[in-house]
Amino acid sequence: MDPSPRSGCAINAAVEVLGDPWSLIVLRDIMFGNRRHFRELIAHSEEGIATNILASRLKQLVAAGLLSRDDARRGQRVTYSLTEAGIQVLPIMVALGNWGLAHRDGEPRLRVRAALLRDGGPELVAAMMDELRELHLGIPRPDPDTPRPSKQLQAAYQTAMRDATGGLSDGDS
Amino acid sequence: MDPSPRSGCAINAAVEVLGDPWSLIVLRDIMFGNRRHFRELIAHSEEGIATNILASRLKQLVAAGLLSRDDARRGQRVTYSLTEAGIQVLPIMVALGNWGLAHRDGEPRLRVRAALLRDGGPELVAAMMDELRELHLGIPRPDPDTPRPSKQLQAAYQTAMRDATGGLSDGDS
Repeated sequence: MDPSPRSGCAINAAVEVLGDPWSLIVLRDIMFGNRRHFRELIAHSEEGIATNILASRLKQLVAAGLLSRDDARRGQRVTYSLTEAGIQVLPIMVALGNWGLAHRDGEPRLRVRAALLRDGGPELVAAMMDELRELHLGIPRPDPDTPRPSKQLQAAYQTAMRDATGGLSDGDS
Repeated sequence: MDPSPRSGCAINAAVEVLGDPWSLIVLRDIMFGNRRHFRELIAHSEEGIATNILASRLKQLVAAGLLSRDDARRGQRVTYSLTEAGIQVLPIMVALGNWGLAHRDGEPRLRVRAALLRDGGPELVAAMMDELRELHLGIPRPDPDTPRPSKQLQAAYQTAMRDATGGLSDGDS
């Protein structure tokens, strides 16, 4: 786990794990892009993360208990999964996205999902956490018949991409 | 303002300003401790921030539009105030505090306010943002007759201090 925290404050405790730009970006890509492997995280990085930074942040996030690492057998790729503590970072991501939407410009293509999460309110965030538990922890969703929030976010993203490019997109990101 | 962002993502935009442990800690102390001057921020720092780090973070937060700096006349101290964009960081602080409360241990004395904000829900957060607007921007609160959330947080803090020390405390922090 972590070394001794700088103080016993709850905000500081979170900041010591999450107060790093690349750690949050890596968690975002695992959470919203379902990128579970090192090479995917590198290849699709919008911010162009460097391999040594990615390697160090994955290691830190595993040590801090936000990710688990499925050690690969010979010839297989290592898979990273969110832990429950990692999944509970989602409300922080939503709060960060809300702030970015309100106070910074950006690309519509990359803002559409943040806007959906803002407008969906606590219910959508809770449903998305349930979907992440299904995907990363194998815990069935409480309402398996409801549509997965990721589908809704993906559809909104693809519509925005079509509007932006006038054509088709692979929808990955 | 900022240099060109690494991507047009709303979460990234927030992370580029706030994805730094000390920036968040400085904002927290201004927000919750109403420390508006350099020397107060140094003297009462729970995490022992260094003077050069504090100076650089205050500068960055002003440049990013989260703080405004009231340039002192000769012999007067510079006062820092939250801007509206800075005040709107409060929900991110609350989300960070919620995570820290759930996933890390800490000192009861320093956790009591995070717990109150968690349990008060969106209404308490909104009321506290109104109080920050009054304090930092001079905008009267919409309901001036309701008690100030800071009083409630302060009272809870002092009760926790008494419980922890069995005596009196100055209540500052």
